[in-house]
Amino acid sequence: MIIKSVMPCTGELRDNEFLLPVRVYYEDTDAGGIVYYANYLKFAERARTEFIRSLGVRQQDELEEENKFGFAVKHCEIDYKMPAVLDDELVVTVQVTGLKGASATMHQEIRRGEDVLAEIDITVVYLSLKQKRPVRIPKELAAKIEQLM
Amino acid sequence: MIIKSVMPCTGELRDNEFLLPVRVYYEDTDAGGIVYYANYLKFAERARTEFIRSLGVRQQDELEEENKFGFAVKHCEIDYKMPAVLDDELVVTVQVTGLKGASATMHQEIRRGEDVLAEIDITVVYLSLKQKRPVRIPKELAAKIEQLM
Amino acid sequence: MIIKSVMPCTGELRDNEFLLPVRVYYEDTDAGGIVYYANYLKFAERARTEFIRSLGVRQQDELEEENKFGFAVKHCEIDYKMPAVLDDELVVTVQVTGLKGASATMHQEIRRGEDVLAEIDITVVYLSLKQKRPVRIPKELAAKIEQLM
Amino acid sequence: MIIKSVMPCTGELRDNEFLLPVRVYYEDTDAGGIVYYANYLKFAERARTEFIRSLGVRQQDELEEENKFGFAVKHCEIDYKMPAVLDDELVVTVQVTGLKGASATMHQEIRRGEDVLAEIDITVVYLSLKQKRPVRIPKELAAKIEQLM
Repeated sequence: MIIKSVMPCTGELRDNEFLLPVRVYYEDTDAGGIVYYANYLKFAERARTEFIRSLGVRQQDELEEENKFGFAVKHCEIDYKMPAVLDDELVVTVQVTGLKGASATMHQEIRRGEDVLAEIDITVVYLSLKQKRPVRIPKELAAKIEQLM
Repeated sequence: MIIKSVMPCTGELRDNEFLLPVRVYYEDTDAGGIVYYANYLKFAERARTEFIRSLGVRQQDELEEENKFGFAVKHCEIDYKMPAVLDDELVVTVQVTGLKGASATMHQEIRRGEDVLAEIDITVVYLSLKQKRPVRIPKELAAKIEQLM
Repeated sequence: MIIKSVMPCTGELRDNEFLLPVRVYYEDTDAGGIVYYANYLKFAERARTEFIRSLGVRQQDELEEENKFGFAVKHCEIDYKMPAVLDDELVVTVQVTGLKGASATMHQEIRRGEDVLAEIDITVVYLSLKQKRPVRIPKELAAKIEQLM
Repeated sequence: MIIKSVMPCTGELRDNEFLLPVRVYYEDTDAGGIVYYANYLKFAERARTEFIRSLGVRQQDELEEENKFGFAVKHCEIDYKMPAVLDDELVVTVQVTGLKGASATMHQEIRRGEDVLAEIDITVVYLSLKQKRPVRIPKELAAKIEQLM
């Protein structure tokens, strides 16, 4: 799986799985010498953002509109299997596992070479930031996501 | 539950539940105008650290010893119920729900007044950082934790 | 200078210098075993926020108003003298050194006991977030700040 | 300056200036809708790390050795000119401006297209992490850095 060197910074889709290369920097680590446990969620969100972007959605556009929209995380489960350390070249994956009305579920992995360092199962909800409540994912976007399941 | 104003910065134990006051600053928020989802895990870790400290353990001491030890998160489940925003005065709780050999489970809540904004269920493992493997929680510490269940 | 134990979480003013106690957690440290260099700026911002709050200004209120306002950092100079480590009890200070129209300058220190770990000189500008340009600091707030110089 | 699309994730050297592409994610922004002021220092450190790596130094190797070494920031001056926002594609630069014994000075810029959003002048010191004191930059590394001035 020496796929990283040819993977673009913006990630890419391979067989319905989105892959983003992520490098571990000092900012990600802690005094235990490993990546701080909350920072895996940052990596995961970068991958989801690039995945959404690869479908043609620009989040900042949605924030700038009169009626702001965005995905918010509703539920998240993380299993930490092995620690990542400084300088690691990781690959963060996104796989859509469900889609229903205003919400979607995704399975994500943090990988280093053949090793899976962490597994994340996440539920995101599409929100109207102004009304602070979930709204149905726009048809066009939902159709694109559905294709990848 | 107007307990915050009298709560020390280092938190305190009330009926087997540890409570830590946490203020939301700009660093914790994101462009959606709410606390970034990974940062609830920072708040949770601050509460666990103060809880452990209240039992008489100083983490930096354990890092400085020849044979370094520390708690690492093995599994984590978060349910996001309501968003926290800038300037919020939160209370982060820790309740020990299980203890076995090298690991402990805890239930944590992020509260704002009467509201529970997030619920976190976490499994931590006591690690030898040098040998990179779980080791039995020291008897004295385990006994102190057990008292609080 | 054993002032920390009696200092409230929200900090306090002593002789025109505002003091905020800050504890170092895992999230603040890096794999070098010390506080990550950018995180001193987080500590500094917490102290400025509590300082402003002590003057009766609530930043979230200003974000929620139709016409949003807030202080933004324009210039910042940091001198790192000694590293802070996990579990340190720090005191972060704020001293107003200048005030002119839309901007203010402040001198800040990160202290551990008698030691000054870092010195920060900062220029903040009062901004209309909607118009994205500096505006004169409101008279009432400016008067309060001026008293502390 | 449409150089970003062809720039590798690990950055590249152009005319003695090292350039690293950096994307702005939610984690980098704050409730003001812009990149949080301390996070520019994270971007700057990523660029310095990739710059050092491009010279053949792997920081994690240096941490794993018996006698740990690493660059630490001694002084830092940042001028914030324009804010970066969510989704921005930035380019972070590194230019070595001085080299002397245990320390080096660098000029860094955060750019978005033609615009310079922030300028950073930084002094780093080569440290023995064990002895916690500056040591002379290894000859081979110093020679490589010198070539780029």
